[in-house]
Amino acid sequence: MRVDGRHRRSLWPAQARDALHVIDQRLLPHAFAVERLTTPADVEHAIRDMVVRGAPLIGATAAYGVALAMNADAGDAALADAVRRLGATRPTAVNLRWALERMQRRLAALPPQARAAAAWDEADAIANDDVAVNEAIGTHGLALLRGLAPRDGRRLNVLTHCNAGWLATVDWGTALAPVYKAQAAGLDVHVWVDETRPRNQGASLTAWELGQQGIAHTVIADNAGGHLMQHGRVDAVIVGCDRVSARGDVANKIGTYLKALAAHDNGVPFWVAMPLSTLDARIDDGVAQIPIEERSVREVTHLAGRAADGRVVEVQLVPDGSAAANPAFDVTPARLVTALITERGVVSATAAGIASLGEGTHG
Amino acid sequence: MRVDGRHRRSLWPAQARDALHVIDQRLLPHAFAVERLTTPADVEHAIRDMVVRGAPLIGATAAYGVALAMNADAGDAALADAVRRLGATRPTAVNLRWALERMQRRLAALPPQARAAAAWDEADAIANDDVAVNEAIGTHGLALLRGLAPRDGRRLNVLTHCNAGWLATVDWGTALAPVYKAQAAGLDVHVWVDETRPRNQGASLTAWELGQQGIAHTVIADNAGGHLMQHGRVDAVIVGCDRVSARGDVANKIGTYLKALAAHDNGVPFWVAMPLSTLDARIDDGVAQIPIEERSVREVTHLAGRAADGRVVEVQLVPDGSAAANPAFDVTPARLVTALITERGVVSATAAGIASLGEGTHG
Repeated sequence: MRVDGRHRRSLWPAQARDALHVIDQRLLPHAFAVERLTTPADVEHAIRDMVVRGAPLIGATAAYGVALAMNADAGDAALADAVRRLGATRPTAVNLRWALERMQRRLAALPPQARAAAAWDEADAIANDDVAVNEAIGTHGLALLRGLAPRDGRRLNVLTHCNAGWLATVDWGTALAPVYKAQAAGLDVHVWVDETRPRNQGASLTAWELGQQGIAHTVIADNAGGHLMQHGRVDAVIVGCDRVSARGDVANKIGTYLKALAAHDNGVPFWVAMPLSTLDARIDDGVAQIPIEERSVREVTHLAGRAADGRVVEVQLVPDGSAAANPAFDVTPARLVTALITERGVVSATAAGIASLGEGTHG
Repeated sequence: MRVDGRHRRSLWPAQARDALHVIDQRLLPHAFAVERLTTPADVEHAIRDMVVRGAPLIGATAAYGVALAMNADAGDAALADAVRRLGATRPTAVNLRWALERMQRRLAALPPQARAAAAWDEADAIANDDVAVNEAIGTHGLALLRGLAPRDGRRLNVLTHCNAGWLATVDWGTALAPVYKAQAAGLDVHVWVDETRPRNQGASLTAWELGQQGIAHTVIADNAGGHLMQHGRVDAVIVGCDRVSARGDVANKIGTYLKALAAHDNGVPFWVAMPLSTLDARIDDGVAQIPIEERSVREVTHLAGRAADGRVVEVQLVPDGSAAANPAFDVTPARLVTALITERGVVSATAAGIASLGEGTHG
């Protein structure tokens, strides 16, 4: 996708295979900066502190973290250590584990001296696969949007929560891939962007990437979506996901569940863009079983933005002495999900629907 | 209720009856300051710019605005003009209209020379009535909370949205009156405080007044409530309201509807603290008929807070060029409301329940 008119991916390895470049997403939308990661510890930090975020991008970034580790020491212990340390950076997203298991499977079968080159190849493959997967999700999602497109020439209004755009992946995005495909197909599409407190990935990242791509969008408080749906102003909700259970329960950014309830209450389709790497077939009851990351309460009590003088300033929102809590994800029960948009097609959020995707699904 | 240990109301007239004092709620929680309003125009500004806010407080403030107008000119035209101008300051809350109609009814029956004194008396009566009404709501709500109080000694967890505490009324609050009564009765009560974007009345006002009163509370992003309810961490939701229709549909701060959906989905009681002055018996279908105020998009795109150096700074959250929208209220259908807590008792959110409250209900 585009940044200032130039095509970018959200990460790219150095040609010398000694570093990974990522966009520092903490600085957007107020500044665009690239960070160069040269050690596995750099990568751990980048994931944990959300320099990069988004389930697919976390997975690809971690894969390159393993490659950086293999540059330094390609022994069995170093491989196990890198996988363990990188896997501990974020608890909710399953792609992270999926990507690390894929790296480990590939590398453990090789002699140590072959691992570094293979690790970079495999990380590149994971990144390229992600792009292909997301483009396929876009194509399948576009077909759904075409089915909704109002015949009266009115705009098609899609609501999304958090950022499941290209910044959350290597390219295209998951939830936003259908929107980008719709733009390319000439549909008149407009996106309601939930700001997505506490970290405001909607207001800062989704709004920014839609703006860079020239797609009409409107930022709203997370509280507003239900009201808009009650008044017929949302044609579909599309969100990404961090982990999906075998029966179709969806862990995604905190607040997703509330939007799913509102969509259900108003007959609005609620679609989840789900790369198969996000499926966790070992888990059935998502509400009970998916671990929910508790992040720093400072994300709730403080907020950073651009002051009038152009500086980015962090301000305190709550009184001194008030406690806060910050669960970062919630789980939307499968019964509220209209369909899952995967790279292999659109299926119902049921055990049968997911099973119909066939072999190669993760479990 | 208490500010720095001293009892305060949220407004008080000057003894000389030439001014109204209000707490400038735009400055909380970072500063406590009293504003002195001496003209009807001052009062209009204070309501429109949310120096004061909260449906009951808006009504009482507007009543004093009429009294200030009568000081200057107590003629019929001046009375009609004051009522019209003050009534246009906020479109959603019905207490505003209720209080102004009560003032007009009382004053129009008097000769002009008697109106100024009567206006101050009537405004005082509206303010005192509000205190009594809210205390009665507190007593009825306490009975509901006692019915929930866990017997295992666990804290009782109440979730509230926006600020319907004493700052939103003259004293006691509506939704928080039961919490204050519970504290006085020795119940171990804890409040989940929705921050309530875009204006953050929860994070700034509710957290502040609960802290001043010594009540345990935790500020959360508006997105978090559904997740907490899914995991049994909310025993009841209590919110205020800005207008209630004859069949029990509830207009309240944007996002209330989403919490009502989550409460319904998880079997959590969803109670609305409703002074009878908030009832609009002329409206039946609240979703279709209650006008929803659209406020400045700057409330969404920017946010003010306290910087590290103590100054209050406004920061921009969205990229330059992104559009925003800011509907300030939504309507929760009666079917999602467990009960209405009024000064006359607890009733179902149905036409029959509301009718059972008897004469004197507003219509």
